[in-house]
Amino acid sequence: MKNYKFIISFNGRNYHGFQRQPEHPTVQGEIETAIHKVTGEQAAITGCSRTDAGVHARKFCFSVRLEIAIPCDNLVKAMNAVLPPDIAVTSCEEAGEDFNARFSAKYKEYIYLINNKEQRDVFLQGLAYHYPHKINGELMREAAQLLIGLHDFAAFCKSEGLKEVTSTVREIYSFDINQNHGFVELIVRGNGFLYNMVRIMAGTLIYISEGKRSIFDIEDAFKTGDRDKAGKTLPPCGLYLNEVHY
Amino acid sequence: MKNYKFIISFNGRNYHGFQRQPEHPTVQGEIETAIHKVTGEQAAITGCSRTDAGVHARKFCFSVRLEIAIPCDNLVKAMNAVLPPDIAVTSCEEAGEDFNARFSAKYKEYIYLINNKEQRDVFLQGLAYHYPHKINGELMREAAQLLIGLHDFAAFCKSEGLKEVTSTVREIYSFDINQNHGFVELIVRGNGFLYNMVRIMAGTLIYISEGKRSIFDIEDAFKTGDRDKAGKTLPPCGLYLNEVHY
Repeated sequence: MKNYKFIISFNGRNYHGFQRQPEHPTVQGEIETAIHKVTGEQAAITGCSRTDAGVHARKFCFSVRLEIAIPCDNLVKAMNAVLPPDIAVTSCEEAGEDFNARFSAKYKEYIYLINNKEQRDVFLQGLAYHYPHKINGELMREAAQLLIGLHDFAAFCKSEGLKEVTSTVREIYSFDINQNHGFVELIVRGNGFLYNMVRIMAGTLIYISEGKRSIFDIEDAFKTGDRDKAGKTLPPCGLYLNEVHY
Repeated sequence: MKNYKFIISFNGRNYHGFQRQPEHPTVQGEIETAIHKVTGEQAAITGCSRTDAGVHARKFCFSVRLEIAIPCDNLVKAMNAVLPPDIAVTSCEEAGEDFNARFSAKYKEYIYLINNKEQRDVFLQGLAYHYPHKINGELMREAAQLLIGLHDFAAFCKSEGLKEVTSTVREIYSFDINQNHGFVELIVRGNGFLYNMVRIMAGTLIYISEGKRSIFDIEDAFKTGDRDKAGKTLPPCGLYLNEVHY
């Protein structure tokens, strides 16, 4: 039995998130089916993270223990041959006994992609959030600085998510905002993220840009845990799990 | 009655081409429905070109005569509000009496987009042709030079298309090949294109790169009109009508 570390990318548009669900197509379900086709083994994989329905990933990591010992390159090719076209295996390597895609992660990087042009982009349908209004980048950057650090992010969590965690304290390491060619990328790194946390942080920055929230509301949100101090939850189509560091 | 010139973009993945067909969803069908919703008029639009099922357009032009006289900007907004998300109106302007999107065109530019990376791109599904093998760019550029000029392109036309035209002579003005970041773009301008002509020219360059055809076969193809001297027809997903000049 060997432990493997896989990197995959997926377009989340047609999936109910990463995590297996009996009634719906999921990325985990497709991967486990592909592993079964290729190796004959019924293996349960461990993803680095859950993702919501419609959310994408560029370098998502999962780990899995397998009996077979075929070369990793062959495993990558065989998996890609049986996976649907919206999921691709980028790489595979043998990992140490203790490696676990979820618990070994040091930090994760998410990108929230906004099409800030006046008109929708027909080629980015389901792949970006179309926000055709003026964005105050300077104000958003100022607000993003306040999100960096160790904070209680309860106000930035969907209520259902609060029951699932023992602590709502997380640390954000960096929060960058790139604007170019009519696109805005919010790039956030942290040691962990609550349910919908990136989408709510992104929505809070948009509300601050619009004047619906002030930058002082962020401090209040940390202190009170009041969801109403934060902004709306932006749609999943703009969200990408960009990479995971171990 | 005024004559309007519209520029639109569309993702062709879900359409049976531009041209209206009673049984299938088409871009023309969607546009005419949108015009009817917005203006109440049953207008027939004239596209700059037919496109095959699955082919995309960045700046496609159509012309249409309408009774109403609402400002063009309002027309753009109203159309975008009722069109499906994979079709977008970019601009609209009043055109001269004689303007006809099809017959007034001076030249058209097509781009054929190849993902030349080893692995598929899950975000470009239906938006590029995945060709993971080595491309001989120098040889393809040499061959592309031979396609430029006034030639009989009968060998580069799908057989059904031959009956529809009185002449198979067309002029190619330029044929550029850009390679960067693992993508190859074939950019071709010409005064007109036969049925599948760009996809067959692109496939011929690929065959030449692979050694399945030689650059001398191009001259032979022009002389004989023999379809077998040209290469295979590449899939529609990589093809974009990029723009039309008037």
